[in-house]
Amino acid sequence: MNSQNNHNKNPQGHRVDTERKRYTVQRSGYKGRPAQKHYQGGHPAPQGKPQNQNSAQRHTPVRIIPLGGLNEIGKNMTVFECSNDMFILDCGLAFPDADMPGVDIVIPDFTYVERNRDKLRGIVITHGHEDHIGGLAYLLKKVNAPVYGSGMTIGLIKHKLEEHDMLNKVELHVVEPRKTIRMGCMAVEFIKVNHSIPGSYGMAIHTPAGVLVHTGDFKVDFSPIDGGPIDLARFGELGNRGVLALMADSTNAERPGYTQSERKVGESFERLFAKAGNRRIIIATFSSNIHRVQQIVNMASKNNRKVAVLGRSMVNVIATALELGYLDVPKNTIIDIEDVNQYPPEQIVLITTGSQGEPMSALTRMAMHDHKKVNITPLDFIIISATPIPGNEKHVTNVVNELLKSGAEVIYESMYEVHVSGHACQEELKLILALTKPKYYIPMHGEYKHLIKNRQLAIEMGIPKENVLLASIGNVIETDGNKLQIVSQVPAGRILVDGLGVGDVGSIVLRDRKHLAEDGLIIIVVGINREMNEIVSGPDIISRGFVYVREADELMTEARQRMCHTLADCSIYELREWTSLKAKLRDALSEYIFEKTKRSPMILPIIMEV
Amino acid sequence: MNSQNNHNKNPQGHRVDTERKRYTVQRSGYKGRPAQKHYQGGHPAPQGKPQNQNSAQRHTPVRIIPLGGLNEIGKNMTVFECSNDMFILDCGLAFPDADMPGVDIVIPDFTYVERNRDKLRGIVITHGHEDHIGGLAYLLKKVNAPVYGSGMTIGLIKHKLEEHDMLNKVELHVVEPRKTIRMGCMAVEFIKVNHSIPGSYGMAIHTPAGVLVHTGDFKVDFSPIDGGPIDLARFGELGNRGVLALMADSTNAERPGYTQSERKVGESFERLFAKAGNRRIIIATFSSNIHRVQQIVNMASKNNRKVAVLGRSMVNVIATALELGYLDVPKNTIIDIEDVNQYPPEQIVLITTGSQGEPMSALTRMAMHDHKKVNITPLDFIIISATPIPGNEKHVTNVVNELLKSGAEVIYESMYEVHVSGHACQEELKLILALTKPKYYIPMHGEYKHLIKNRQLAIEMGIPKENVLLASIGNVIETDGNKLQIVSQVPAGRILVDGLGVGDVGSIVLRDRKHLAEDGLIIIVVGINREMNEIVSGPDIISRGFVYVREADELMTEARQRMCHTLADCSIYELREWTSLKAKLRDALSEYIFEKTKRSPMILPIIMEV
Repeated sequence: MNSQNNHNKNPQGHRVDTERKRYTVQRSGYKGRPAQKHYQGGHPAPQGKPQNQNSAQRHTPVRIIPLGGLNEIGKNMTVFECSNDMFILDCGLAFPDADMPGVDIVIPDFTYVERNRDKLRGIVITHGHEDHIGGLAYLLKKVNAPVYGSGMTIGLIKHKLEEHDMLNKVELHVVEPRKTIRMGCMAVEFIKVNHSIPGSYGMAIHTPAGVLVHTGDFKVDFSPIDGGPIDLARFGELGNRGVLALMADSTNAERPGYTQSERKVGESFERLFAKAGNRRIIIATFSSNIHRVQQIVNMASKNNRKVAVLGRSMVNVIATALELGYLDVPKNTIIDIEDVNQYPPEQIVLITTGSQGEPMSALTRMAMHDHKKVNITPLDFIIISATPIPGNEKHVTNVVNELLKSGAEVIYESMYEVHVSGHACQEELKLILALTKPKYYIPMHGEYKHLIKNRQLAIEMGIPKENVLLASIGNVIETDGNKLQIVSQVPAGRILVDGLGVGDVGSIVLRDRKHLAEDGLIIIVVGINREMNEIVSGPDIISRGFVYVREADELMTEARQRMCHTLADCSIYELREWTSLKAKLRDALSEYIFEKTKRSPMILPIIMEV
Repeated sequence: MNSQNNHNKNPQGHRVDTERKRYTVQRSGYKGRPAQKHYQGGHPAPQGKPQNQNSAQRHTPVRIIPLGGLNEIGKNMTVFECSNDMFILDCGLAFPDADMPGVDIVIPDFTYVERNRDKLRGIVITHGHEDHIGGLAYLLKKVNAPVYGSGMTIGLIKHKLEEHDMLNKVELHVVEPRKTIRMGCMAVEFIKVNHSIPGSYGMAIHTPAGVLVHTGDFKVDFSPIDGGPIDLARFGELGNRGVLALMADSTNAERPGYTQSERKVGESFERLFAKAGNRRIIIATFSSNIHRVQQIVNMASKNNRKVAVLGRSMVNVIATALELGYLDVPKNTIIDIEDVNQYPPEQIVLITTGSQGEPMSALTRMAMHDHKKVNITPLDFIIISATPIPGNEKHVTNVVNELLKSGAEVIYESMYEVHVSGHACQEELKLILALTKPKYYIPMHGEYKHLIKNRQLAIEMGIPKENVLLASIGNVIETDGNKLQIVSQVPAGRILVDGLGVGDVGSIVLRDRKHLAEDGLIIIVVGINREMNEIVSGPDIISRGFVYVREADELMTEARQRMCHTLADCSIYELREWTSLKAKLRDALSEYIFEKTKRSPMILPIIMEV
């Protein structure tokens, strides 16, 4: 456990030995930034007599309301409520599915929080991944509350708020491990966990009804790159004192065994740097995985290679990590991308975004010969240090194919263990269960298939079946310390963000977009003189996304004739009733087009009154 | 090797012992079907003196022209040409990517074949998968030629031609293993291989320049379910006599070791049937995998369960396989789906389509509670006997989640080995290389990353680097027996099929569809009296797939006002020049909309002359 002492060389001094300073207030860091105050009122975790959850004594009930992250990957958000107090744990985004064309991101429905804004005491964030912080700026436009998280988390949140021009409007607090923040009649204790981003916390929520433990996203890494292993001792201590309910990360609940240590990736890098020989090395990974970046920097330094950083998010996150002391880089190791060409290939490592084959990322642009500064040649040795997130497989494959065509060697598979997961596998979940010994268990953070695998683990560990709760978003889970059950439902769902529009793309708009994408559009325009009941213009036919019109002359000409006939058949009465006239035109054209092409484009009759 | 005797119990008698009948003509089968003739003129494979490919003697050159299947998965098609003769090997389809909305299938560009239709002597098909036969009906609409393949392949092709109402127009020939078909100055010998569909062949192409061996899609299965292992002896014999070039399946060239035997899946089924206990068993797999279906039928029969079949393609393929004797089903084992409810769950196995989570498939409809005849309950034990094809991962996951929500147990991962690949891994490729000892090697059937891995294997096996050819579709590869090289290029590419339209969806239509899908559409309609240069109607604004208009009143009203102002600013000259007027309206609206929403919908100004 003393590996927590490893990295307190930080000159800014705001990441200190948490063992020594335990339960004291952290005062340093972020000097002179007006929008960010350091939390001065941390309370020590309750040290008194263990609460007896087995007594039949009824306590003030606590309500747990997940608003995202159940039956889905992404937009994690949970509300905790007791008496007149409420706080929020995480506020993430989800990335849109293929059935949401044009949508940028998806955020939780905040209705319930807005309606109860007076109760809101604060927002605690487990870690700085997008699925935990990406909805925050949108929430903070609706309600205001202080935000608490680790230095890394708060650093990344600041960046987001700056982008939304909101930095001065929000109170941000850095919280050190084992510190406790009071939220009215509840208190939240921050407990260090391992994950694929530095500064990740689980939470112990001390409530009148008992202690709720939330793991956040976690893994157990006994040899992490930085900051020491997960604070298992504290989880055990809480377990000994009595944990009412454990809420645990289900992401890897399908996988047996243990997740490998991040250090394993370093061992692969060691071999791969040797294999690269005198070639330039390019490594793509998740920008937030600072531990991975640290290992790349270490290997580069050891091999006398300079490091240059590419991709907007990679540049941003590395800058934040350097500033906050989460990244330890020997002097003169990082160089500007502009200076890369002053060195021979064997003295260079490029760290880049694009490990998911994202269309606009630096690696994708390199692959497509569309990057201004990097040209891929047979003198490149490329490592994609990530596994594709479901849905991204084809993107990654395309990028790999294109990089290979330039003659580079590309390492992109599990054969070299160039990636490890950030989430606990089955044995790690069992370890946390064994340490915390909860009365109730609530699988969190996963699709249904993950949640039920996680439930099964708890049942195998001896938790009674009826004490394991499979919840859905919007469920109100209430517990008074004796019982824990779903008692009601609040509004919950997904809000789509498209450009500046939040929630203005709904199911009708999506249905139209999908229809337009499938078969395109045909517009019929007719001008009618209403007084005379006379067609004065058209019908004209215009199409987009249907057929290439220049090569479908005959079809379009005949379609127009059909419309002429349909109009000629109309009685004066019908020419007056535009709703039925439109339907008549639509049906006639639709029938003709389907007969000729077996396609059903959207048909839009437009009648102009002249 | 005598396991080829295993399955000649077929009552129709058209799958006979190929050992005994070697080099004799196959006369039986498909009686009384006018469109299908049995090939009567099979020639024995050349048995004379081996050709000496190492001599400097120049032979009549042969040209190999891949028109699909290189740098892609799907639409496999290769043209072989010598003097005035040409034949085609395979004619498959590819499934559309996410960037081809609305497209049903993708087929090769047939231009080169059409231009040389006079030379075309025939079409040989390696096996009946869609990526090898799915383009055939479209090709046969353009050119006519006899088609040769195994009984299973021809059975499936007949089905396709029936759907296109073309069955009576095409000559179909069933060819037995080790038979040779003459194609002008060339001859094609059919060699049995193992694959995930019965009746799969590799081909030896005997040409004046030497022997070309094409593996087709293959694996080496020493314990296959039916028909015996791949004819390794013949590949060896050809190798001893001298193979000029080997063209080999690259699909699994990235994977070390051997592909498991299909029988492995049967062992898993054994355990899973026991695990299912008294629950109904539902198994989803590829309809063409008749060996898998055979194993399910065997297990069902052994466990006293009846089998019912669901899903159109599953019903079709099983009917074809039964009719041709590729499937051996004990009497009264298969029952009608209508009769399933007469049996308790423990006496039922359902075989269904949908192993890829295809939206309209039977399994997906069951998962979504949308299947008329099957209702999923906790008394169901479901096995998805397939791995998701790249791009389908999310579909499969959705189906799994929904099935689990109904309380069923779902087996969907590699943990039980419920699927094995149909393609050769590295050691199998090496085996074929070692047997055929080709002078030249051409990796086929795969994306670039597969092709170069396959190339690397050949180089490791001792084939000189310069004798391994990485080709692309449209390349004309020429060899006279001494040299093999790319000499020119013919038209090649992808033709998109959407409904009845073949090739009428091109890049402009796709661009429009993607644009419409991303941000929707805004239409501005204005009626202008051209004589008076006067606006007599509008401007009106209509949108689809942009915002939900009822909730964006203000935006749309202001957009209309902007258009009024833009028109009011127009000079009489501008009102006459409709092209520039349209551009002016488009730009003004586009700017306004982007400013307000950060979106760029398609903007379509329509000016009506009144």
